[in-house]
Amino acid sequence: MKKDSALSQSYQDADYPIIGHGPRSMQVLLDAFKQADGSQFSDMYGKGEIIEAFEAKMAKLLGKEAAVFFPSGTMAQQIALRIWCDRRGYRTAAYHPLCHLEIHEERGLHELHGIRSILLGGEDRLITLEDIQAVGEPIGCLLLELPQREIGGQLPAYEELEAISAWCREQGIPIHLDGARLFEIVPYYGRSEAEISSLFDSVYVSFYKGIGGIAGAILAGDADLAQQSKVWKRRHGGDLISLYPYIVSSEHYLDKRLPLMESYLDGARDLSSRFNRCSRMRTVPEQPVSNMFHLHLDLPVERASALLEQTAKDTGVSFLPYLKETSPDSCAGEIHIGDRYARIPAEKLDQAFKRLEELAGQA
Amino acid sequence: MKKDSALSQSYQDADYPIIGHGPRSMQVLLDAFKQADGSQFSDMYGKGEIIEAFEAKMAKLLGKEAAVFFPSGTMAQQIALRIWCDRRGYRTAAYHPLCHLEIHEERGLHELHGIRSILLGGEDRLITLEDIQAVGEPIGCLLLELPQREIGGQLPAYEELEAISAWCREQGIPIHLDGARLFEIVPYYGRSEAEISSLFDSVYVSFYKGIGGIAGAILAGDADLAQQSKVWKRRHGGDLISLYPYIVSSEHYLDKRLPLMESYLDGARDLSSRFNRCSRMRTVPEQPVSNMFHLHLDLPVERASALLEQTAKDTGVSFLPYLKETSPDSCAGEIHIGDRYARIPAEKLDQAFKRLEELAGQA
Repeated sequence: MKKDSALSQSYQDADYPIIGHGPRSMQVLLDAFKQADGSQFSDMYGKGEIIEAFEAKMAKLLGKEAAVFFPSGTMAQQIALRIWCDRRGYRTAAYHPLCHLEIHEERGLHELHGIRSILLGGEDRLITLEDIQAVGEPIGCLLLELPQREIGGQLPAYEELEAISAWCREQGIPIHLDGARLFEIVPYYGRSEAEISSLFDSVYVSFYKGIGGIAGAILAGDADLAQQSKVWKRRHGGDLISLYPYIVSSEHYLDKRLPLMESYLDGARDLSSRFNRCSRMRTVPEQPVSNMFHLHLDLPVERASALLEQTAKDTGVSFLPYLKETSPDSCAGEIHIGDRYARIPAEKLDQAFKRLEELAGQA
Repeated sequence: MKKDSALSQSYQDADYPIIGHGPRSMQVLLDAFKQADGSQFSDMYGKGEIIEAFEAKMAKLLGKEAAVFFPSGTMAQQIALRIWCDRRGYRTAAYHPLCHLEIHEERGLHELHGIRSILLGGEDRLITLEDIQAVGEPIGCLLLELPQREIGGQLPAYEELEAISAWCREQGIPIHLDGARLFEIVPYYGRSEAEISSLFDSVYVSFYKGIGGIAGAILAGDADLAQQSKVWKRRHGGDLISLYPYIVSSEHYLDKRLPLMESYLDGARDLSSRFNRCSRMRTVPEQPVSNMFHLHLDLPVERASALLEQTAKDTGVSFLPYLKETSPDSCAGEIHIGDRYARIPAEKLDQAFKRLEELAGQA
């Protein structure tokens, strides 16, 4: 994302920023530990009540034999792919070109694990069954990200997902779910986390996206995978003596926000429809399938930034802290809905969109 | 360590356990955040005031150009060795056979970085300059651990250290300090952290040994090493969106306990001299050079455990939660001194050693 500091400042200074739950401040930790029992013992290198109980709870929620808590998804997913590639006997992982592993991890999967990526799908579309079937070499593991974040949070039809899963299992290709935003798609699919995960051999979920925790991740799968992943966690330097700051906060916000995922989806749909009625604006997906979407503006990034900044100053409602240039005449930004959206008074939002449309009409 | 659960229970149940600062409970976090400002923003993937200010403070304390905060020492040290080996052009790291990398990391350095270890020194002695000079192959990096924990926390003479450093620099061998317990040796050497670190090209320090924080580590060295280490931190999955739970607690306990390191050394010397006056007991080192030492008992592990357990029950002072068998007729345990020792009433300690001697005499 290209950072426009004036836009970012105007976003932060506004009374009603629309994205997420609130600022990523230390209050997130203070709230999570308000009820904490100081006498409770820390987890110790992956052992102890505090970590084991949460892992068991997550294994159950995800419908897997076992779950392991990790400090990060980067670590959890590289390790999952390594274990599958080792089992399968091929050092290749197939995934989307805008997969987290491909664009945000400094090629860690290759540098640390010697695994080569096979890129499937396109920079503006999802992976299809045909893409997978057309791969002309052995696949060590297939990773699907649901929803596909970097293209606005798109999802395949559930039937397509079932077909991909069935075909991979027929072929003996392990299939891993990048479920960083799995909780966020449950309302759209109308299937539980466990039902969706049952199409995959392993699944990773994150606690600081829709859940809004501090950091942390779970990797779930069969008992052997869990056990092996602990060995790799130690090798990566992720088997900390104490992970409880992340575990306690993850559980706190999971319990709080899991029941709210449907309202976040509703919020995203309400907001996207408002944008789609504005001049020079459209969202991808047009109708969100999770709490997120991308807002595309048919304006040069500088003019779009100025427009959003002005709206924030004039109405107190701020939409985006960053915009990314997509061409000399267009730009885009990512929006995800959390607790904040429902707290914005309806008249404030109406005013903001009225002003936005005035400015966009002039632009 | 062989875990004797009755011994461990008696250790925990006693009024006066002697090791460390206190139980590893969530109170450690609650105390560290008591004064925290909830409105302060989180660090964001290694950036932001909260992490950068602490890294700058640590770089200064360690006398290095730059410092990088890591979730763990395992991660920090593998990465330091990888960077040095890459610069030097050899994938070999020389260190002690009881080095953390060799015995506690599931061979991560080899599995993730393809670095082979060259073991120097012995299971009951330190690495000497002669050991290093006798290596018959190129060394990518030399790691020295000060103090050498697994042999009771021994230290070379400072002059030996200077000679090793000078020779390595002459030969162009990078030299890295495993300073997990660096703060703890400052009083003995009578040199600052920066002076000791100046003999090394990079240094790692931990915040949950003598400092008593939750977890976390710093790697310090030249600016290039710091920059490259951030890339590797991302690859390892250690570049968390928020590390502040560890940073805030590390700084809190660093500020609190750095001035107490001399008193911990004094405590360790007082306690070791008491043990050395007991029958069938001796400490390694005989006179501690940091806050730690190993207690060796010339008794079968079961009898030694029973003896310590009985002393705890009879006097309320408990010495050790675990003992490791070293032969059929002997065993040993690790003791490190923190805040607890000075809080034990002198008469309680006298009673405990009197009882210990009675029982050891009978044993």
